[in-house]
Amino acid sequence: MAEPCDAVDVIMTKRDGKTLSIPQIKWMIDAYTRGVVAEEQMSALLMAIFLQGFTREELNCWTDAMIASGERLDFTELARPTVDKHSTGGVGDKITLPLSAVVASFGVAVPQLSGRGLGHTGGTLDKLESIPGWRAALSLDEMKKQLSEIGAVVCQAGSGLAPADRKLYALRDVTGTVASIPLIASSIMSKKIAEGTSALMLDVKCGSGAFMTEIGPAQELASTMVEIGEDHGVHTVALITDMSTPLGKTVGNALEVRESVEVLAGGGPDDVIELTLRLAREMLDAASTIVEKKGIPGAGVSPGSKEALRRAEALREADLAESLKNGRAMDSWRAIITAQGGDPDAELGTAQDHEEILCPTDGFMTRLDALKVGVAGWRLGAGRARKEDAVQIGAGIQLHAKPGDSVRRGQSLMTLHSDTPEAFQRAKEVLEGAWTIDDNPPEPSSVVIDRVASAP
Amino acid sequence: MAEPCDAVDVIMTKRDGKTLSIPQIKWMIDAYTRGVVAEEQMSALLMAIFLQGFTREELNCWTDAMIASGERLDFTELARPTVDKHSTGGVGDKITLPLSAVVASFGVAVPQLSGRGLGHTGGTLDKLESIPGWRAALSLDEMKKQLSEIGAVVCQAGSGLAPADRKLYALRDVTGTVASIPLIASSIMSKKIAEGTSALMLDVKCGSGAFMTEIGPAQELASTMVEIGEDHGVHTVALITDMSTPLGKTVGNALEVRESVEVLAGGGPDDVIELTLRLAREMLDAASTIVEKKGIPGAGVSPGSKEALRRAEALREADLAESLKNGRAMDSWRAIITAQGGDPDAELGTAQDHEEILCPTDGFMTRLDALKVGVAGWRLGAGRARKEDAVQIGAGIQLHAKPGDSVRRGQSLMTLHSDTPEAFQRAKEVLEGAWTIDDNPPEPSSVVIDRVASAP
Repeated sequence: MAEPCDAVDVIMTKRDGKTLSIPQIKWMIDAYTRGVVAEEQMSALLMAIFLQGFTREELNCWTDAMIASGERLDFTELARPTVDKHSTGGVGDKITLPLSAVVASFGVAVPQLSGRGLGHTGGTLDKLESIPGWRAALSLDEMKKQLSEIGAVVCQAGSGLAPADRKLYALRDVTGTVASIPLIASSIMSKKIAEGTSALMLDVKCGSGAFMTEIGPAQELASTMVEIGEDHGVHTVALITDMSTPLGKTVGNALEVRESVEVLAGGGPDDVIELTLRLAREMLDAASTIVEKKGIPGAGVSPGSKEALRRAEALREADLAESLKNGRAMDSWRAIITAQGGDPDAELGTAQDHEEILCPTDGFMTRLDALKVGVAGWRLGAGRARKEDAVQIGAGIQLHAKPGDSVRRGQSLMTLHSDTPEAFQRAKEVLEGAWTIDDNPPEPSSVVIDRVASAP
Repeated sequence: MAEPCDAVDVIMTKRDGKTLSIPQIKWMIDAYTRGVVAEEQMSALLMAIFLQGFTREELNCWTDAMIASGERLDFTELARPTVDKHSTGGVGDKITLPLSAVVASFGVAVPQLSGRGLGHTGGTLDKLESIPGWRAALSLDEMKKQLSEIGAVVCQAGSGLAPADRKLYALRDVTGTVASIPLIASSIMSKKIAEGTSALMLDVKCGSGAFMTEIGPAQELASTMVEIGEDHGVHTVALITDMSTPLGKTVGNALEVRESVEVLAGGGPDDVIELTLRLAREMLDAASTIVEKKGIPGAGVSPGSKEALRRAEALREADLAESLKNGRAMDSWRAIITAQGGDPDAELGTAQDHEEILCPTDGFMTRLDALKVGVAGWRLGAGRARKEDAVQIGAGIQLHAKPGDSVRRGQSLMTLHSDTPEAFQRAKEVLEGAWTIDDNPPEPSSVVIDRVASAP
C-alpha cells in the first residue's frame, strides 16, 4: 500500500523551519514504529526538531502520536481521584517513597510508574528493590487492585505504554538529540498521559546534579510540560526544585530507603520533609480540584455534588505534617511495600566496607555539589553506566554535613559505603572540590525555587 | 581497540554550533566508512552540519577525510597538463561532449569521470551510450593510455574514488540533507581532487532546471568549491551559467549527441557554441597557468623553462572557434569515441513515435522553462527516476524555438520523441505553461552569468 506521506518531505519541512502538519506528524511516528521510516531518517528529523523547535500545536500532536503508538490505561473506575508525580531525576531524590505514602494516606490514588537509575541519578525501583521480597513488575490487574485498596503503587512501566517513545529515546541517546526541551517534554508527558492519571505533579530539578543545570531551561521545560498536560485534559502543576545540593543526607539505594522510613517515622532531614510536604500539598490540591470539577465517577460522586465538594474540601484541609507524626503515612507505606511482596520490617542490606571523609578545617559548609556526590555514589556502586548493569544495595554516601551546617576540623563530613574496596579511591577523586567551607554561613535557601501552573 | 573519539560528542559539538576538530572529522568519516559510526548517527551529524554550517577549515578537513577514504589517481606522469570539468547538471547540458574534444585537440588531457542522469537532468554516460559500441567502463590503465594518446576520456568513475562520499550521498538522499552547500561542495570536490587533475573547471548551473535556482546560493556554492580546490592545490575556476532555459535545441540522449556532433562540425545552436568555447577558453588558460607554474613533469618540461613558457603561451593563444571550423575538434571527438569502442559514423537510434507541439499565437518566445522541459523529457523516457531504471536512447525533445526567436501561430514549437505512446500525454501536461509568447522580444542575455576564481 502506498504511504500517505514521504519521510524526506517531512524532514525537509522541519529542516527549513516550517510547521509540520498533523497528518505528517501522525504518519511519521506511526511509520517509524512500524519500521517504514528508517532510524537514519528519524534521527535527521530529531536533529531538525532539536535545532528548529516545535510549535505548541506540533508538540501536542507529536505527544498524541506517541500516546497512540501504544495502550492507554484508564483509572476512571477507581473509587479515588488519581494524581501522579514525576521527577526529572537528581541525586538523593527519594521523595517518591515518603510522598506516595503520605498522599495515599488521604485517599488519593498515586499510580507511580517509575524507572531505574542511570549514571549519577538514582532510580526509585533500584531503591525499593533493596527491600527483601519487594517486586517492581506488576500486572495491570495487580496494579489496579493495589490502587483501589491501598492507594499507591510504585512499579515499573509496562512495555505497552508509548512504545514509540522507547524506540525514540534509544535513538536520541546515540544521536546527540536528548537535550531538546520539546523532545524531553513529549517523552515524559506521553508516558504520563498514557498512564491515565487525572492530575500530574512535576518536580523539575535544577542545578549541577540535574539534567537542567540552569533555571531558564528548567522553567521552559516545566511550562512546556504544563502546557502539554493541560492541552490533554490532565491538570498539571510543576515545581522547580533545587538540585545543586543532594536531597537529604543519603545517596544510595538502601541508604535512601532508610532515610525515607525515618521521614515517615516523623524524623529525617529538613529538606526531604519540606519537599515531601510541599509536593503532597500540591497533589492534594490538584486532587481536590479534580474532585470538584469531575467528581469521582468510580465512587459514584458526581461533579459539583455536595459529596464532591465535601471531599474536595477535606483534601484541601488535610494536615499533612501531622500524617508523618501520627503514623498514618507510615501505615500507608507498610501497606504499599507489603502488597508488592516486600517485608517492611526486614533489615536492609549494608555495604561490606566503608570509609570516612574528614573535614580539613573549622567553619560553615556553604556548598556541596550534587553532581560530584552523585558521581561518587555511582563509582561506589550505587549507580550504573548501562541499563544492563547491576547496582549494589548497600553502596552510597551518608552526608554528615550539608550547606548551612557548622563543621569542625577532623569531624567526618561523609561516610562512603561500597562492596568494592577499589571504589573508594575513585570516589574520593571525584569528590575533590565537591564542597566549600567558609568562615560565614550561607544565606538560607528553600528547596523550592519556582512553581509553574497554567492560568486557572 | 578503543576508538579515539565518540560519535555523540562529535554530533553534539556541531549541534551546538561549535567547530569540529581535525581529529574529530577524520575519525568520524573513517569510522563511518568502517561501519563503527551508525547511519543514524551520521544522519544526525549531517542535519547539524546542514543547519549550523562548516568553517573553511572544517570543510577542507571533511573533504580530505573523504579523499582519504579511497584511492587517489595520479596523472603526473602524463606528457600533457590535465584539466577536468564538472557541471552541477541541467537540462540539455551536453557541453562535455564537444568541450572535451575541443580541449583535447590542443594537447590538454581531460580526465572526465562522469555520471548518469537522475530525474529531470541528463547524464553524460547515458548520452554517449546511444553511440553503438561505446562503453563507459574503463580500467585505470585504459584510461591513462587514452589520456596519453588522445587527450580526453569520458568514462564512469570507479568505485575506489572517495567511497565515503558514495555512502554519505546515499544517506543524504533519504534524510533530507542533500541541499547543503558545504556537503554538496565537499562531495563534488572530494571526487574531483581524488581524480588527480591539476586544474578544474566548474560549471555551476543556476535557474529552474538546475539544483540551484537562485544566483546567491549558486555563487556561494561556486566560491566554496573554488576555495576547496585552491586549498588542495588544484587550480579551480567556476562559471555560473544560466539554466532557466534548456541548453541548445535538444533534450534527450541520442538527440543531444547529434547536436554535439553538429557543433563539432561547425554548426549547432549559438548557446552551446558560446558555452563550449567559453569553458574551453577557461580550461586552456588554466592549463597554461599550470604549465607555467609546474611545467609538465611527464614530458620533461620543467617549471619556468623556456619550453614551459612556449607551451603556456601556445595554450593561451589557441584559436578555439577555428578548431570547430577546421575539423580539428571533430578529429579529436572521433578518436575519443573510437578508443572507447564506439562507432562515430554509426546511425544513432531514434524513438518509435513523435508528436508536435504547435504554437498557439504569433509573437516572440520570451521564456522557455528548463525544469518543465527537463521533466517532460524524463516522462518521454529520456530520464530515469531510480538509478536502476533504463533510459530510452531516442526519447526526448527537439526545440524549434528558443527565447528571443519569433514564432508564428501553427508552427511546431517542439517535437516530442518517445517509444511509449502513453508518454506523450504526460509530457504535454508537464509542458503546460512552460513557455511565454509575447509581442516584443526579450532582452538578449548571455549563457554565462558570473565567473568565480580565487585571487591570483
